[in-house]
Amino acid sequence: MQARETHKFAENIQAVKRMPQYLRLFNKVLGSGRDYISSVQIAKETGFRAILIKKDLLMVGAPGKTKLGYNVKGTIQTIENYLGWHNKKDACIVGYGKLGAALFNYEGFKKHGFNIVAAFDADYNNKKQPPLNNLYPMDKLAEFIKKNNISTAIITVPPASAQTVADMLVKAGIGAIWNFSPADIKVPQDVVIQNEDLSVGLALLCSRLRN
Amino acid sequence: MQARETHKFAENIQAVKRMPQYLRLFNKVLGSGRDYISSVQIAKETGFRAILIKKDLLMVGAPGKTKLGYNVKGTIQTIENYLGWHNKKDACIVGYGKLGAALFNYEGFKKHGFNIVAAFDADYNNKKQPPLNNLYPMDKLAEFIKKNNISTAIITVPPASAQTVADMLVKAGIGAIWNFSPADIKVPQDVVIQNEDLSVGLALLCSRLRN
Repeated sequence: MQARETHKFAENIQAVKRMPQYLRLFNKVLGSGRDYISSVQIAKETGFRAILIKKDLLMVGAPGKTKLGYNVKGTIQTIENYLGWHNKKDACIVGYGKLGAALFNYEGFKKHGFNIVAAFDADYNNKKQPPLNNLYPMDKLAEFIKKNNISTAIITVPPASAQTVADMLVKAGIGAIWNFSPADIKVPQDVVIQNEDLSVGLALLCSRLRN
Repeated sequence: MQARETHKFAENIQAVKRMPQYLRLFNKVLGSGRDYISSVQIAKETGFRAILIKKDLLMVGAPGKTKLGYNVKGTIQTIENYLGWHNKKDACIVGYGKLGAALFNYEGFKKHGFNIVAAFDADYNNKKQPPLNNLYPMDKLAEFIKKNNISTAIITVPPASAQTVADMLVKAGIGAIWNFSPADIKVPQDVVIQNEDLSVGLALLCSRLRN
Protein backbone atom coordinates (compact mmCIF):
# COMPACT_ATOMS: atom_id res chain seq x y z
CA MET A 1 0.00 0.00 0.00
CA GLN A 2 1.30 3.47 -0.90
CA ALA A 3 1.78 6.05 1.84
CA ARG A 4 -1.06 8.22 0.56
CA GLU A 5 -3.48 5.29 0.43
CA THR A 6 -2.51 4.30 3.96
CA HIS A 7 -3.24 7.85 5.08
CA LYS A 8 -6.61 7.82 3.34
CA PHE A 9 -7.50 4.46 4.87
CA ALA A 10 -6.54 5.74 8.33
CA GLU A 11 -8.70 8.83 7.79
CA ASN A 12 -11.59 6.61 6.79
CA ILE A 13 -11.18 4.51 9.95
CA GLN A 14 -11.40 7.68 12.05
CA ALA A 15 -14.57 8.69 10.20
CA VAL A 16 -16.14 5.26 10.76
CA LYS A 17 -15.30 5.58 14.46
CA ARG A 18 -17.23 8.84 14.64
CA MET A 19 -20.37 7.33 13.08
CA PRO A 20 -21.83 5.83 16.30
CA GLN A 21 -21.56 9.24 17.94
CA TYR A 22 -23.41 10.90 15.03
CA LEU A 23 -26.06 8.19 15.31
CA ARG A 24 -26.53 8.80 19.03
CA LEU A 25 -26.90 12.54 18.44
CA PHE A 26 -29.28 12.17 15.48
CA ASN A 27 -31.44 9.72 17.41
CA LYS A 28 -31.60 12.18 20.32
CA VAL A 29 -32.61 14.96 17.93
CA LEU A 30 -35.18 12.66 16.33
CA GLY A 31 -36.62 11.95 19.78
CA SER A 32 -36.99 15.69 20.41
CA GLY A 33 -39.12 15.97 17.28
CA ARG A 34 -36.79 18.02 15.07
CA ASP A 35 -36.45 17.16 11.38
CA TYR A 36 -33.17 18.94 10.52
CA ILE A 37 -29.86 19.70 12.18
CA SER A 38 -27.02 21.86 10.82
CA SER A 39 -23.32 20.98 10.84
CA VAL A 40 -22.73 23.92 13.18
CA GLN A 41 -25.20 22.46 15.66
CA ILE A 42 -23.63 19.01 15.28
CA ALA A 43 -20.24 20.59 15.95
CA LYS A 44 -21.59 22.19 19.10
CA GLU A 45 -22.94 18.88 20.40
CA THR A 46 -20.08 16.58 19.43
CA GLY A 47 -17.04 18.84 19.73
CA PHE A 48 -15.90 17.90 16.19
CA ARG A 49 -15.12 20.70 13.74
CA ALA A 50 -17.95 21.54 11.30
CA ILE A 51 -15.68 20.94 8.28
CA LEU A 52 -14.86 17.44 9.52
CA ILE A 53 -18.54 16.70 10.09
CA LYS A 54 -19.38 17.84 6.55
CA LYS A 55 -16.65 15.58 5.17
CA ASP A 56 -17.82 12.58 7.23
CA LEU A 57 -21.46 12.98 6.26
CA LEU A 58 -20.55 13.56 2.61
CA MET A 59 -18.63 10.28 2.70
CA VAL A 60 -21.72 8.31 3.73
CA GLY A 61 -23.99 10.35 1.44
CA ALA A 62 -26.19 11.95 4.10
CA PRO A 63 -29.19 13.88 2.71
CA GLY A 64 -29.18 17.62 3.46
CA LYS A 65 -30.77 20.87 2.38
CA THR A 66 -29.10 24.28 2.11
CA LYS A 67 -29.90 26.44 5.16
CA LEU A 68 -31.91 23.65 6.83
CA GLY A 69 -29.05 21.19 7.39
CA TYR A 70 -29.16 17.41 7.46
CA ASN A 71 -32.42 15.50 7.41
CA VAL A 72 -32.39 13.63 10.70
CA LYS A 73 -34.33 10.49 9.79
CA GLY A 74 -32.64 10.19 6.39
CA THR A 75 -29.15 10.61 7.83
CA ILE A 76 -29.75 7.91 10.45
CA GLN A 77 -30.81 5.53 7.68
CA THR A 78 -27.84 6.51 5.53
CA ILE A 79 -25.27 5.97 8.29
CA GLU A 80 -26.84 2.67 9.33
CA ASN A 81 -26.78 1.53 5.72
CA TYR A 82 -23.17 2.63 5.35
CA LEU A 83 -22.23 0.57 8.42
CA GLY A 84 -24.27 -2.38 7.17
CA TRP A 85 -26.36 -2.32 10.35
CA HIS A 86 -29.45 -3.40 8.45
CA ASN A 87 -27.83 -6.65 7.36
CA LYS A 88 -28.24 -9.45 9.85
CA LYS A 89 -24.98 -11.06 10.95
CA ASP A 90 -24.91 -14.17 13.12
CA ALA A 91 -22.03 -14.38 15.56
CA CYS A 92 -20.77 -16.62 18.31
CA ILE A 93 -18.68 -16.03 21.42
CA VAL A 94 -15.76 -18.22 22.43
CA GLY A 95 -15.00 -17.97 26.15
CA TYR A 96 -17.99 -17.57 28.43
CA GLY A 97 -16.35 -15.85 31.38
CA LYS A 98 -17.56 -12.53 32.82
CA LEU A 99 -16.60 -10.52 29.73
CA GLY A 100 -18.07 -13.15 27.42
CA ALA A 101 -21.32 -13.08 29.41
CA ALA A 102 -21.37 -9.27 29.37
CA LEU A 103 -21.02 -9.18 25.57
CA PHE A 104 -23.48 -12.03 25.13
CA ASN A 105 -26.09 -9.95 26.94
CA TYR A 106 -25.14 -6.54 25.50
CA GLU A 107 -28.38 -5.03 24.19
CA GLY A 108 -26.70 -2.60 21.81
CA PHE A 109 -25.54 -5.31 19.40
CA LYS A 110 -28.91 -6.71 18.42
CA LYS A 111 -30.04 -3.24 17.35
CA HIS A 112 -27.20 -3.26 14.81
CA GLY A 113 -28.12 -6.59 13.26
CA PHE A 114 -25.36 -8.27 15.22
CA ASN A 115 -26.94 -11.38 16.63
CA ILE A 116 -24.91 -13.50 19.03
CA VAL A 117 -26.53 -16.91 18.72
CA ALA A 118 -24.19 -19.14 20.75
CA ALA A 119 -21.36 -19.20 23.26
CA PHE A 120 -18.64 -21.83 23.63
CA ASP A 121 -16.50 -22.54 26.66
CA ALA A 122 -13.66 -24.95 27.42
CA ASP A 123 -14.92 -25.21 30.97
CA TYR A 124 -18.45 -26.02 29.84
CA ASN A 125 -18.93 -28.88 32.28
CA ASN A 126 -17.99 -26.83 35.34
CA LYS A 127 -20.03 -23.71 34.57
CA LYS A 128 -22.29 -23.20 37.55
CA GLN A 129 -24.28 -20.60 35.63
CA PRO A 130 -28.00 -21.28 35.40
CA PRO A 131 -28.86 -23.42 32.37
CA LEU A 132 -28.07 -21.38 29.27
CA ASN A 133 -29.58 -22.85 26.13
CA ASN A 134 -26.98 -21.48 23.80
CA LEU A 135 -23.84 -22.46 25.70
CA TYR A 136 -21.86 -25.36 24.21
CA PRO A 137 -18.59 -27.20 24.84
CA MET A 138 -15.64 -26.41 22.57
CA ASP A 139 -15.85 -29.64 20.58
CA LYS A 140 -19.15 -28.45 19.09
CA LEU A 141 -17.61 -25.20 17.76
CA ALA A 142 -16.53 -26.17 14.23
CA GLU A 143 -19.72 -28.10 13.48
CA PHE A 144 -21.93 -25.27 14.75
CA ILE A 145 -20.16 -22.60 12.69
CA LYS A 146 -20.42 -24.63 9.48
CA LYS A 147 -24.00 -25.76 10.04
CA ASN A 148 -25.34 -22.32 10.99
CA ASN A 149 -23.22 -20.28 8.60
CA ILE A 150 -21.78 -18.09 11.38
CA SER A 151 -19.77 -15.21 9.88
CA THR A 152 -18.20 -13.64 12.95
CA ALA A 153 -16.70 -14.87 16.21
CA ILE A 154 -15.92 -12.92 19.36
CA ILE A 155 -12.91 -14.20 21.30
CA THR A 156 -12.98 -13.67 25.08
CA VAL A 157 -10.69 -16.48 26.20
CA PRO A 158 -7.49 -15.95 28.25
CA PRO A 159 -4.58 -14.69 26.09
CA ALA A 160 -2.73 -18.02 26.28
CA SER A 161 -5.57 -19.79 24.44
CA ALA A 162 -6.41 -17.02 21.96
CA GLN A 163 -4.28 -18.22 19.02
CA THR A 164 -5.46 -21.83 19.37
CA VAL A 165 -9.08 -20.67 19.35
CA ALA A 166 -8.43 -18.38 16.35
CA ASP A 167 -6.90 -21.31 14.44
CA MET A 168 -9.97 -23.44 15.19
CA LEU A 169 -12.26 -20.65 14.00
CA VAL A 170 -10.34 -20.09 10.77
CA LYS A 171 -10.35 -23.81 10.05
CA ALA A 172 -14.12 -23.86 10.58
CA GLY A 173 -14.46 -21.12 7.95
CA ILE A 174 -15.16 -18.00 10.00
CA GLY A 175 -15.02 -14.69 8.08
CA ALA A 176 -14.25 -12.24 10.88
CA ILE A 177 -12.84 -12.30 14.40
CA TRP A 178 -13.51 -9.65 17.03
CA ASN A 179 -10.75 -10.25 19.54
CA PHE A 180 -11.21 -9.06 23.13
CA SER A 181 -8.31 -11.13 24.43
CA PRO A 182 -5.13 -9.09 25.02
CA ALA A 183 -3.09 -11.29 22.67
CA ASP A 184 -1.81 -10.71 19.15
CA ILE A 185 -3.58 -13.20 16.92
CA LYS A 186 -2.36 -14.20 13.47
CA VAL A 187 -5.00 -15.04 10.84
CA PRO A 188 -4.91 -15.50 7.05
CA GLN A 189 -5.30 -12.33 4.97
CA ASP A 190 -8.88 -13.10 3.94
CA VAL A 191 -10.10 -13.19 7.55
CA VAL A 192 -11.06 -9.81 9.03
CA ILE A 193 -9.63 -9.19 12.47
CA GLN A 194 -10.63 -6.42 14.85
CA ASN A 195 -8.71 -6.14 18.11
CA GLU A 196 -10.41 -4.66 21.15
CA ASP A 197 -7.68 -4.38 23.74
CA LEU A 198 -8.98 -2.82 26.95
CA SER A 199 -5.47 -1.76 27.94
CA VAL A 200 -5.40 0.55 24.88
CA GLY A 201 -8.24 2.50 26.48
CA LEU A 202 -6.32 2.51 29.74
CA ALA A 203 -3.18 3.75 27.95
CA LEU A 204 -5.15 6.64 26.43
CA LEU A 205 -6.78 7.47 29.75
CA CYS A 206 -3.39 7.49 31.52
CA SER A 207 -1.74 9.63 28.86
CA ARG A 208 -4.60 12.12 29.08
CA LEU A 209 -4.32 12.22 32.85
CA ARG A 210 -0.59 12.89 32.50
CA ASN A 211 -1.03 15.82 30.08
CA MET B 1 -6.55 24.65 19.20
CA GLN B 2 -4.86 25.31 15.84
CA ALA B 3 -5.34 22.81 13.02
CA ARG B 4 -1.70 21.75 13.13
CA GLU B 5 -1.79 21.19 16.88
CA THR B 6 -4.97 19.14 16.52
CA HIS B 7 -3.21 17.03 13.89
CA LYS B 8 -0.20 16.54 16.15
CA PHE B 9 -2.39 15.61 19.10
CA ALA B 10 -4.29 13.09 16.93
CA GLU B 11 -0.97 11.59 15.79
CA ASN B 12 0.12 11.30 19.40
CA ILE B 13 -3.13 9.51 20.30
CA GLN B 14 -2.46 6.96 17.56
CA ALA B 15 1.06 6.43 18.92
CA VAL B 16 -0.25 5.94 22.46
CA LYS B 17 -2.72 3.38 21.12
CA ARG B 18 0.14 1.37 19.63
CA MET B 19 2.07 1.24 22.92
CA PRO B 20 0.21 -1.76 24.42
CA GLN B 21 1.00 -3.76 21.29
CA TYR B 22 4.71 -2.85 21.53
CA LEU B 23 4.61 -3.88 25.19
CA ARG B 24 3.07 -7.26 24.36
CA LEU B 25 5.72 -7.90 21.70
CA PHE B 26 8.64 -6.74 23.86
CA ASN B 27 7.45 -8.91 26.75
CA LYS B 28 7.22 -11.90 24.42
CA VAL B 29 10.76 -11.22 23.17
CA LEU B 30 11.94 -10.81 26.77
CA GLY B 31 10.40 -14.19 27.60
CA SER B 32 12.32 -15.79 24.75
CA GLY B 33 15.58 -14.56 26.29
CA ARG B 34 16.60 -12.00 23.65
CA ASP B 35 18.09 -8.66 24.74
CA TYR B 36 17.61 -6.59 21.56
CA ILE B 37 15.12 -6.24 18.74
CA SER B 38 15.41 -4.10 15.60
CA SER B 39 12.71 -1.86 14.15
CA VAL B 40 12.64 -4.12 11.07
CA GLN B 41 11.86 -7.12 13.26
CA ILE B 42 9.22 -5.12 15.17
CA ALA B 43 7.69 -4.16 11.82
CA LYS B 44 7.55 -7.82 10.81
CA GLU B 45 5.77 -8.79 14.02
CA THR B 46 3.34 -5.88 14.34
CA GLY B 47 2.62 -4.99 10.73
CA PHE B 48 3.47 -1.31 11.40
CA ARG B 49 5.98 0.41 9.11
CA ALA B 50 9.54 0.58 10.50
CA ILE B 51 9.63 4.38 10.13
CA LEU B 52 6.48 4.70 12.25
CA ILE B 53 7.93 2.38 14.89
CA LYS B 54 11.11 4.46 15.07
CA LYS B 55 9.05 7.62 15.49
CA ASP B 56 6.87 6.06 18.21
CA LEU B 57 9.82 4.71 20.19
CA LEU B 58 11.72 7.98 19.79
CA MET B 59 8.70 9.77 21.26
CA VAL B 60 8.83 7.72 24.47
CA GLY B 61 12.65 7.79 24.54
CA ALA B 62 13.30 4.06 24.12
CA PRO B 63 16.97 3.06 24.55
CA GLY B 64 18.61 1.57 21.45
CA LYS B 65 21.99 0.79 19.96
CA THR B 66 23.03 1.10 16.30
CA LYS B 67 22.95 -2.29 14.58
CA LEU B 68 21.61 -4.07 17.70
CA GLY B 69 18.24 -2.35 17.88
CA TYR B 70 16.16 -1.55 20.95
CA ASN B 71 17.06 -2.86 24.37
CA VAL B 72 14.09 -5.01 25.30
CA LYS B 73 14.06 -4.60 29.08
CA GLY B 74 14.85 -0.90 28.88
CA THR B 75 12.16 -0.21 26.29
CA ILE B 76 9.49 -1.99 28.34
CA GLN B 77 10.42 0.19 31.33
CA THR B 78 10.44 3.32 29.16
CA ILE B 79 7.01 2.67 27.64
CA GLU B 80 5.50 1.78 31.02
CA ASN B 81 6.93 4.98 32.48
CA TYR B 82 5.60 6.99 29.55
CA LEU B 83 2.12 5.57 30.14
CA GLY B 84 2.41 6.14 33.87
CA TRP B 85 1.82 2.45 34.53
CA HIS B 86 4.18 2.50 37.51
CA ASN B 87 2.05 5.05 39.33
CA LYS B 88 -0.72 3.53 41.37
CA LYS B 89 -4.19 4.86 40.56
CA ASP B 90 -7.21 3.93 42.64
CA ALA B 91 -10.47 3.64 40.73
CA CYS B 92 -14.08 2.70 41.32
CA ILE B 93 -16.80 1.24 39.11
CA VAL B 94 -20.33 2.59 39.00
CA GLY B 95 -22.81 0.00 37.74
CA TYR B 96 -22.16 -3.58 38.82
CA GLY B 97 -23.91 -5.43 35.99
CA LYS B 98 -22.20 -8.05 33.86
CA LEU B 99 -19.86 -5.56 32.17
CA GLY B 100 -19.07 -3.90 35.50
CA ALA B 101 -18.28 -7.28 37.01
CA ALA B 102 -16.11 -8.22 34.04
CA LEU B 103 -14.04 -5.04 34.36
CA PHE B 104 -13.91 -5.36 38.17
CA ASN B 105 -12.27 -8.74 37.72
CA TYR B 106 -10.09 -7.92 34.69
CA GLU B 107 -6.58 -9.05 35.60
CA GLY B 108 -4.82 -6.81 33.09
CA PHE B 109 -5.61 -3.58 34.93
CA LYS B 110 -3.80 -4.32 38.19
CA LYS B 111 -0.59 -4.96 36.27
CA HIS B 112 -0.79 -1.36 35.04
CA GLY B 113 -1.20 0.18 38.49
CA PHE B 114 -4.91 0.58 37.88
CA ASN B 115 -6.52 -0.65 41.04
CA ILE B 116 -10.32 -0.92 41.14
CA VAL B 117 -11.07 -0.74 44.85
CA ALA B 118 -14.87 -0.52 44.93
CA ALA B 119 -18.05 -0.92 42.91
CA PHE B 120 -21.34 0.93 43.36
CA ASP B 121 -24.77 -0.10 42.17
CA ALA B 122 -28.23 1.47 42.31
CA ASP B 123 -29.71 -2.00 42.66
CA TYR B 124 -27.39 -2.86 45.57
CA ASN B 125 -30.14 -4.35 47.74
CA ASN B 126 -31.35 -6.74 45.06
CA LYS B 127 -27.97 -8.04 43.92
CA LYS B 128 -28.12 -11.78 44.36
CA GLN B 129 -24.38 -12.04 43.76
CA PRO B 130 -22.39 -13.75 46.51
CA PRO B 131 -21.28 -11.28 49.18
CA LEU B 132 -18.79 -8.91 47.59
CA ASN B 133 -16.89 -6.89 50.15
CA ASN B 134 -16.30 -3.91 47.93
CA LEU B 135 -19.82 -3.43 46.56
CA TYR B 136 -21.72 -0.45 47.95
CA PRO B 137 -25.04 1.32 47.39
CA MET B 138 -25.03 4.57 45.40
CA ASP B 139 -25.53 6.83 48.43
CA LYS B 140 -22.04 5.88 49.65
CA LEU B 141 -20.38 7.01 46.38
CA ALA B 142 -19.48 10.64 47.10
CA GLU B 143 -18.22 9.95 50.61
CA PHE B 144 -16.10 7.01 49.45
CA ILE B 145 -14.45 8.98 46.63
CA LYS B 146 -13.54 11.88 48.90
CA LYS B 147 -12.37 9.73 51.82
CA ASN B 148 -10.25 7.39 49.69
CA ASN B 149 -8.98 9.96 47.22
CA ILE B 150 -10.24 8.02 44.19
CA SER B 151 -8.95 9.61 40.97
CA THR B 152 -10.80 7.66 38.31
CA ALA B 153 -14.28 6.19 37.89
CA ILE B 154 -15.51 3.65 35.37
CA ILE B 155 -19.13 4.09 34.31
CA THR B 156 -20.99 0.92 33.32
CA VAL B 157 -24.58 1.98 34.04
CA PRO B 158 -27.37 2.01 31.41
CA PRO B 159 -27.14 5.03 29.05
CA ALA B 160 -30.18 6.73 30.58
CA SER B 161 -28.40 7.05 33.96
CA ALA B 162 -24.92 7.88 32.65
CA GLN B 163 -25.13 11.69 32.84
CA THR B 164 -26.63 11.65 36.36
CA VAL B 165 -23.84 9.36 37.54
CA ALA B 166 -21.21 11.54 35.83
CA ASP B 167 -22.61 14.63 37.57
CA MET B 168 -22.41 12.84 40.95
CA LEU B 169 -18.81 11.84 40.26
CA VAL B 170 -17.76 15.32 39.20
CA LYS B 171 -19.39 16.80 42.29
CA ALA B 172 -17.50 14.30 44.44
CA GLY B 173 -14.23 15.54 42.91
CA ILE B 174 -13.30 12.76 40.47
CA GLY B 175 -10.43 13.56 38.08
CA ALA B 176 -11.16 11.16 35.24
CA ILE B 177 -14.08 9.15 33.89
CA TRP B 178 -13.75 6.04 31.75
CA ASN B 179 -17.18 5.73 30.19
CA PHE B 180 -18.35 2.32 28.93
CA SER B 181 -21.98 3.40 28.67
CA PRO B 182 -23.09 4.20 25.10
CA ALA B 183 -24.12 7.74 26.04
CA ASP B 184 -22.49 11.10 25.41
CA ILE B 185 -21.53 12.51 28.77
CA LYS B 186 -20.78 16.17 29.42
CA VAL B 187 -18.15 17.01 32.05
CA PRO B 188 -16.26 20.18 32.99
CA GLN B 189 -13.04 20.84 31.03
CA ASP B 190 -10.74 19.87 33.90
CA VAL B 191 -12.20 16.35 34.10
CA VAL B 192 -10.62 13.81 31.74
CA ILE B 193 -13.13 11.70 29.84
CA GLN B 194 -12.39 8.57 27.83
CA ASN B 195 -15.28 6.98 25.96
CA GLU B 196 -15.23 3.26 25.30
CA ASP B 197 -18.20 2.62 23.06
CA LEU B 198 -18.45 -1.04 22.06
CA SER B 199 -20.51 -0.13 19.00
CA VAL B 200 -17.48 1.77 17.63
CA GLY B 201 -15.66 -1.56 17.48
CA LEU B 202 -18.69 -3.07 15.82
CA ALA B 203 -18.81 -0.21 13.30
CA LEU B 204 -15.16 -0.81 12.40
CA LEU B 205 -15.69 -4.54 12.14
CA CYS B 206 -18.71 -4.07 9.87
CA SER B 207 -16.95 -1.55 7.63
CA ARG B 208 -13.99 -3.95 7.28
CA LEU B 209 -16.33 -6.80 6.41
CA ARG B 210 -17.98 -4.61 3.78
CA ASN B 211 -14.69 -3.62 2.08
